[in-house]
Amino acid sequence: MKTSIKQLYQNTENFSDKDIIINGWIRTNRGSKHFGFIEVNDGTYFKGVQVVYEEDIDNFSQISKLTIATAITVRGKFILTPDSKQAFEIKADEIKIEASADSSYPLQKKRHTLEYLRTIAHLRPRSNTFSAVFRVRSLVAYAVHQFFQERDFVYTHTPIITASDAEGAGEMFHVTTLDLKNPPKNERGDIDFSKDFFDKATNLTVSGQLEAEAFALAFQKVYTFGPTFRAENSNTARHAAEFWMIEPEIAFADLNDDMELAEDMIKYVINYLLVNAAEEMNFFNSFINKGLLDKLNNIVNSDFAHITYTEAIDILTKAKKEFQYPVSWGMDLQTEHERYIAEEVYKKPVFVTDYPKDIKAFYMRLNDDEKTVAAMDLLVPGVGEIIGGSQREERHDILLERMSAVGLNSEDYWWYLELRKYGGVKHAGFGLGFERAIMYMTGMENIRDVLPFPRTVGNAEF
Amino acid sequence: MKTSIKQLYQNTENFSDKDIIINGWIRTNRGSKHFGFIEVNDGTYFKGVQVVYEEDIDNFSQISKLTIATAITVRGKFILTPDSKQAFEIKADEIKIEASADSSYPLQKKRHTLEYLRTIAHLRPRSNTFSAVFRVRSLVAYAVHQFFQERDFVYTHTPIITASDAEGAGEMFHVTTLDLKNPPKNERGDIDFSKDFFDKATNLTVSGQLEAEAFALAFQKVYTFGPTFRAENSNTARHAAEFWMIEPEIAFADLNDDMELAEDMIKYVINYLLVNAAEEMNFFNSFINKGLLDKLNNIVNSDFAHITYTEAIDILTKAKKEFQYPVSWGMDLQTEHERYIAEEVYKKPVFVTDYPKDIKAFYMRLNDDEKTVAAMDLLVPGVGEIIGGSQREERHDILLERMSAVGLNSEDYWWYLELRKYGGVKHAGFGLGFERAIMYMTGMENIRDVLPFPRTVGNAEF
Repeated sequence: MKTSIKQLYQNTENFSDKDIIINGWIRTNRGSKHFGFIEVNDGTYFKGVQVVYEEDIDNFSQISKLTIATAITVRGKFILTPDSKQAFEIKADEIKIEASADSSYPLQKKRHTLEYLRTIAHLRPRSNTFSAVFRVRSLVAYAVHQFFQERDFVYTHTPIITASDAEGAGEMFHVTTLDLKNPPKNERGDIDFSKDFFDKATNLTVSGQLEAEAFALAFQKVYTFGPTFRAENSNTARHAAEFWMIEPEIAFADLNDDMELAEDMIKYVINYLLVNAAEEMNFFNSFINKGLLDKLNNIVNSDFAHITYTEAIDILTKAKKEFQYPVSWGMDLQTEHERYIAEEVYKKPVFVTDYPKDIKAFYMRLNDDEKTVAAMDLLVPGVGEIIGGSQREERHDILLERMSAVGLNSEDYWWYLELRKYGGVKHAGFGLGFERAIMYMTGMENIRDVLPFPRTVGNAEF
Repeated sequence: MKTSIKQLYQNTENFSDKDIIINGWIRTNRGSKHFGFIEVNDGTYFKGVQVVYEEDIDNFSQISKLTIATAITVRGKFILTPDSKQAFEIKADEIKIEASADSSYPLQKKRHTLEYLRTIAHLRPRSNTFSAVFRVRSLVAYAVHQFFQERDFVYTHTPIITASDAEGAGEMFHVTTLDLKNPPKNERGDIDFSKDFFDKATNLTVSGQLEAEAFALAFQKVYTFGPTFRAENSNTARHAAEFWMIEPEIAFADLNDDMELAEDMIKYVINYLLVNAAEEMNFFNSFINKGLLDKLNNIVNSDFAHITYTEAIDILTKAKKEFQYPVSWGMDLQTEHERYIAEEVYKKPVFVTDYPKDIKAFYMRLNDDEKTVAAMDLLVPGVGEIIGGSQREERHDILLERMSAVGLNSEDYWWYLELRKYGGVKHAGFGLGFERAIMYMTGMENIRDVLPFPRTVGNAEF
């Protein structure tokens, strides 16, 4: 019976003394004169299975020399070994070579630095760390979909190529089919974008929010989950030029509904992970970030705290702590401030709301004090901000004023403004950077190590 | 009790005579002197609910004049009406206006052309047709994830920005942060891409397949689901510059396994849709494409046929039918040929395999006849090709020869070639264009009408 290694771990008893067939790649091979052990991993499960072979097997001497990464098919008997370190093993009747592996294989059984592994991004998912990271990434993505679909949210594919700039400020990548060497120019000597593919200048999106708002005003509950881009020249462990973002948007909803949704989503996803990636999470907890499981369990079991920005400034001002960035009302909170509030004061996730309007985007709803907006950031211990959201400005005239105040051309946003004229009820949403969430849930500290093939300043390899 | 309209339809009996609260937007309002009827849609369900209000309600005269698209909250009693056209209605105690709608609202209750509705893409999801299309789109996306996740596939986010060209031929969009007006040039007068964001020339991806292969050789079963791009100057009903693609890749697998996976996936997704979008599918069947449900049921209940390309050419040669493109071995099949085979000969989906190597991509596995490759296309009645896939060339030397024959620089593909040296076992995969699948399953005939905000030649609005 052909089976996967995942099935062997999940239905161990059922396979006892059965003849089975597995496929996989050799992780280790310790051959001696009369017998040997191969650890096989087939990619379906974090752990592999031990295969025992003895000298009476066909091609014994060839098998005992098989190198790491060789692809094999194993036919043999599944045997429970309750007295051993591993719970079971396969006693091989036949080992067939499916594809050989050159001895130059760079992922030999020894510790490699994460930096080195980035240079072999096509092979690193075969290592323990990256096999865990990328399976968790897949499971978290699915948990996000499941969370929203169970609640009747409509998954909306907002455009990647766009002629607008949702944040009004992001540094963007140009998208063009013009001949870069000899672009067409108009009479004034400017690039003639009417000759470009879309008849105008276009960029890669920084957010699908504005389009998601249009859909939320039809479906009430929608979410996006797709790639977004920043052409920021930031060579840090937390910045990538290309990353995935989740942006739910809900109508007939205010900032409180928005925070409730964010809290529910975070807890749902972490729970899903703890149940469906137990092996991987134990690995991260043991080898990548000690205390990770305590941290995540704490999140699942906490009621998140709520404070206003003004209260946060008050707490920071009174703090017996020297900050690098001095604290005053009107400033943007820095990571050191965010972490102090979440880690040292509340020791759990904290929503900070009602930020000064001048440090937030034009589309956030102006509060009655006319100084602050209905924005929220979720701060978590160990990281700082992980989610940013807001109630949107649904009042046509105030939105128009805000756009003009920040220098946006309202004609470019005609359709966004029009949404406010036709049943543009109160609505709200937030953005969760998918990679930052994965970093948080795995303890991985560099965004390059949670993206399959990261794109950062100076790097678009593979 | 606050509820959604979806819940009213799904648990109708439970709400009988209960006091309920719903939110939604007015679709029609027929007020008379002493009473009126409002049809409310809240976006959670294809259908709306009828609200009856009488003259004793607060603000009766204002309510009877409420315009289409006004957002309201209705408090009232839920009443079963077994003798009426609709199974239930809400007898309103209170109707509260949440957001007004200007009378210029362009989606009045009359038929609009699909062409016109494209010009108001921010409002069209509020129409019956597009509410159905975009909910189906969301459900199909989720069904795809569910299909693969249930089978332990790892969802792999392959890069959008890339320095390579997976097909070796696609017309691609440049991605750059260079000043297009005054780009830096090198001594030879060429653009100096070492000054660009990624230190080299980059494009938008046409396929994640090559990177997916790397992950399949670690996880055995992976899939991608993300946006892909073609800068083709094709102004047809089937071409968009930006579309989503699903690309599974499986290791220890040959072309037969690949076809089995494709057939299972198509059937799974259609079944999911028939169960979870029954209202929408009935709408499409009645108003968009008569016979749609028969067509889809036929697919779910058929065993897909299998023929080789050579057999297909034979069938076409003997056909008592005049084709626009004459038939001969070595030619690429045109849509007219594909449809003849699927619609008239087999009357069900047909896999065509083993195409001439010269009309297929370099990475497809060379058959022993050295003339054909282990490729497959799935042809379906009414459309023609909907899936294209292949077993991949896993033999290092033959792959190298094929790359050189088509003029690719093997150094650019060093990592792809290296996969063949380290346990590069037989593997296969396919690509499904997500929008083409949605068109097929809804009967919509223009790709612009299944993309929320389509990007086509000359168009990047919204």
